[in-house]
Amino acid sequence: MITRADAERLDAADPLASFRDRFVLPDGLVYLDGNSLGALPKTATERVARVVAREWGEGLVRSWNDAGWIDLPRRVGDKIARLVGAGEGEVVCADSTSVNVFKVLSAALALRPERSTILSEEGNFPTDLYVAEGLARLLGKGHRLRLVPRKDVLSALDADTAVLLLTHVDYRTGERHDLEAVTRAGHEAGALVAWDLAHSAGAMPVDLTGAGADLAVGCGYKYLCGGPGAPAFLYVARRHQEAFDQPLSGWLGHAEPFAFEAAYRPAPGVARALCGTPPILSMSAFDAALDVLLEADLALVRTKSEALTSFFVEAVEQECGGAVRLVSPRVASLRGSQVSFAHPDAYAVMRALIARGVVGDVRAPDVLRFGFAPLYTRFVDAWETVRALADVLPSHAHERPEFRRRAAVT
Amino acid sequence: MITRADAERLDAADPLASFRDRFVLPDGLVYLDGNSLGALPKTATERVARVVAREWGEGLVRSWNDAGWIDLPRRVGDKIARLVGAGEGEVVCADSTSVNVFKVLSAALALRPERSTILSEEGNFPTDLYVAEGLARLLGKGHRLRLVPRKDVLSALDADTAVLLLTHVDYRTGERHDLEAVTRAGHEAGALVAWDLAHSAGAMPVDLTGAGADLAVGCGYKYLCGGPGAPAFLYVARRHQEAFDQPLSGWLGHAEPFAFEAAYRPAPGVARALCGTPPILSMSAFDAALDVLLEADLALVRTKSEALTSFFVEAVEQECGGAVRLVSPRVASLRGSQVSFAHPDAYAVMRALIARGVVGDVRAPDVLRFGFAPLYTRFVDAWETVRALADVLPSHAHERPEFRRRAAVT
Repeated sequence: MITRADAERLDAADPLASFRDRFVLPDGLVYLDGNSLGALPKTATERVARVVAREWGEGLVRSWNDAGWIDLPRRVGDKIARLVGAGEGEVVCADSTSVNVFKVLSAALALRPERSTILSEEGNFPTDLYVAEGLARLLGKGHRLRLVPRKDVLSALDADTAVLLLTHVDYRTGERHDLEAVTRAGHEAGALVAWDLAHSAGAMPVDLTGAGADLAVGCGYKYLCGGPGAPAFLYVARRHQEAFDQPLSGWLGHAEPFAFEAAYRPAPGVARALCGTPPILSMSAFDAALDVLLEADLALVRTKSEALTSFFVEAVEQECGGAVRLVSPRVASLRGSQVSFAHPDAYAVMRALIARGVVGDVRAPDVLRFGFAPLYTRFVDAWETVRALADVLPSHAHERPEFRRRAAVT
Repeated sequence: MITRADAERLDAADPLASFRDRFVLPDGLVYLDGNSLGALPKTATERVARVVAREWGEGLVRSWNDAGWIDLPRRVGDKIARLVGAGEGEVVCADSTSVNVFKVLSAALALRPERSTILSEEGNFPTDLYVAEGLARLLGKGHRLRLVPRKDVLSALDADTAVLLLTHVDYRTGERHDLEAVTRAGHEAGALVAWDLAHSAGAMPVDLTGAGADLAVGCGYKYLCGGPGAPAFLYVARRHQEAFDQPLSGWLGHAEPFAFEAAYRPAPGVARALCGTPPILSMSAFDAALDVLLEADLALVRTKSEALTSFFVEAVEQECGGAVRLVSPRVASLRGSQVSFAHPDAYAVMRALIARGVVGDVRAPDVLRFGFAPLYTRFVDAWETVRALADVLPSHAHERPEFRRRAAVT
C-alpha cells in the first residue's frame, strides 16, 4: 500500500526540493496545472517591477539600448537553447507559438519547393493544425495539410511530404514521441521535421541537435514559467538558417532594422525569424524565469518527473480503483510530465477538485489532466490530489462507501 | 519674440495640464520621444504589479477566467476603438503591428481576388513594406507590392489595386494623410484601404467609421503609452468581418478555442483576427494606459498638439535661424503630433541634446525628430528643447556667437 508517508519520504530525498521555494505557490493550493500556466518565479516579480519602474519609467526609450531590450529576443533565445539542446544563435524568443508555427511551416515549404504536403497527426494541438491549414489555404497551389492517426504518421511519410509537424509530448495524453527516431524517419523520406516543444521544454532534457531536428517552436508559459501568454520560441538548425525564408518579415528580422531601408534584407542567422517589436514586460518575466530553470539539472528534473507521475498513477489506481481510466502511457519513459485519466464526468470531477483546492484541468471530451512541474511539485501534492480525487469521484464513493470515512481522518 | 514666459503662460492655460501628473516623468528630463515609446502611466505600475502577484502568482491558471484574461484582447480592443472612431467589436488588441499588417493584407487580397497589387508609398514605415513584400513573395501568383512616391499615390490607384496600405501620419516627416479623402479615392478605384495608425492613435481624433476605412492596424507603445513592445491593434470594419479570412488562424481566433476541434472555424466578428495566446503582462499595462487616455477629450488633445508643435516650429526658427531645416509641414493641420528638422549632423546633434537631458530621436539619414505627446508634454518642455538645440547647434553658434552668452542666463 502506498501511503502519505511514502510521499513524505520521497520529498525528503528529492534533490530538487529547494527549488519549490523559488516560486510563489498559494497556501493550501495543490497546483497541478503547470503544464497550462507555470507558477510565478519570485525573481520574476522583482524583475518585472524593475523593468516597469526603472527601465520604462525612468529609462524610457533609452532602455532599448541601455537596458538591452533590443537584444532580449536573442538573449532569451540563447537561454532557451540550453534547455532544448540547441546551440547559441539557433533560438529566438518571439511572438506566440501559433505565429511561430506559421513561420517555420512557410520556411519549410520554401525549402522543399517540389513537395506540397504538411503532414501531422489528428490529435496534434489544434492551433498547430489551424495555422497549418491557414497557410495551406493561403498558398493554394496544391498545398495541403494531411492528418493521419498517430500510429500511421511514419508510414504516411512520402515523396510529397515537405514537412512533418508534430508535438513532442501530446497535450491530451502526455504521450511522448521519440524525437530522434521520428526525425530520422522524416529525413529518410526527404522531409523536414518541425517539432512543437510546448509540453516538453523545461520538463525534461530535449536534444534538438542530437536528434538532427530541422525546426522547432515552443511555448514560454508552461513548464518554462514565463508568465501568462509569455512570448514563444523558435528554433532553426544552423544548417537551414541561410535559406530560412519566412514571410512575416518584419523590421526586427531585418539585417539593419534602424537603417530603415525600403527593401527587406534578412538578418544573418536565426534573427531573421523575428518580426515586430517584442512585448518587453512579458519577455522580461520569461527571462527571469529561465535563470531559475537553468540552475536545475534537467536529468534530475526528468528523474523526478518520472517518479512523480509513476507515484501518481499507482496511487490513483490504488485509491480510486477503476473509477478513472489511465489515458497516459503506463510506461514512464513514454510519458511527458503529465498524467491524464478519463472519466465520463470529467468537468464535474475537476470542478469538485478545484473547490477542494486541487487545480488540474480538463480537455474535451473526458480527460482529467494533471501536470507535474518537477521544480515545484511535491510527492505530497500528488498524494493530496489522489485523496481528493478519490473523495470526489461519485461512482467510486458509491462503490466503496468506507472510503469517505477513511478520507476524513487522513 | 517668443520667450519662456510665453511657454509658461500657455502651460498655465492648458486644460490638459493635470494629465502630466498621471505619468512617471524623470526629474530634469525633457522627453520628446513619446512617439517612439510613450511614458509610463502611474496606474500601469500598480496594474502590472497586481497582475503578476495576484493574478499570476495567486490566481494561476484560474485567472484566465477569474481575472478575465481570456477576454482581454477584446476588452482592450473596445477601448482602442473609442480612440480611433471604431465601433464596439471592430478592434482587437493582438500581436505586433507587423504581424497585424500581414493579417489585414492577406484578408484584403482574399477580398479582392481578381486584383493582385498592394499599393503603398515609398516612404511608408519599413516594417509595413517588408511584411507586404513577404506576403507578395509567399503568394507568388503575380501578386506584388507597388511603391510610388507620396504625391503619386492617388494617381497610381488602378483596376489591379487590391489594397492601398498607408500610414496615417508619416513616421519621419510627421505629415498627415487625409484619412477620408484618401479612403474615398481608394474606394472609387475599387480598392480596399488599410491604415496604419501607429503615429496617430492617441494623439488626435481619428474617425475610421466616418472615413469609411476598411482595415487598420496600429501600435500600442507610442502615443497610447502601452509600454515597451505593447501588443498592437487591428481594426476590421463590421461590413468586412464575415468575409475576413486571414491565414494566421490560431486557436484564439477559433469560434470555440476550448472545444479543441480538429478543423479551424473562425470566430464571429473581429475575434477571428486573433491568433495565439496574448502576452498578458504587457497587455495589462496597455489596458491601464488606455483608461488614462480615455479620460481626455481628443479634440482638446489635438488642439494642444497643434499649439505645441506650432510653438516649437516658431521658436526653433527664431532661436536657431537657418541651422536646421523644417521637414514637417508648416501648416499645423497637415501634421501629426511631431516636428522634424533636418540637419547634416543629426546624430551628433541628438547625442548632444540627450547629454543635456533632452530626448528626441533621429531617423536616417538626417532627421531630428521631436514628438509632442499632448498629455504629458508642456510648452516649457518645447522651450527648453529649443534652447538646448540652439546651444548645441555648432553652425548656429558659429553664426551667432552672442547666442551662447544669452543662453547662459535664460
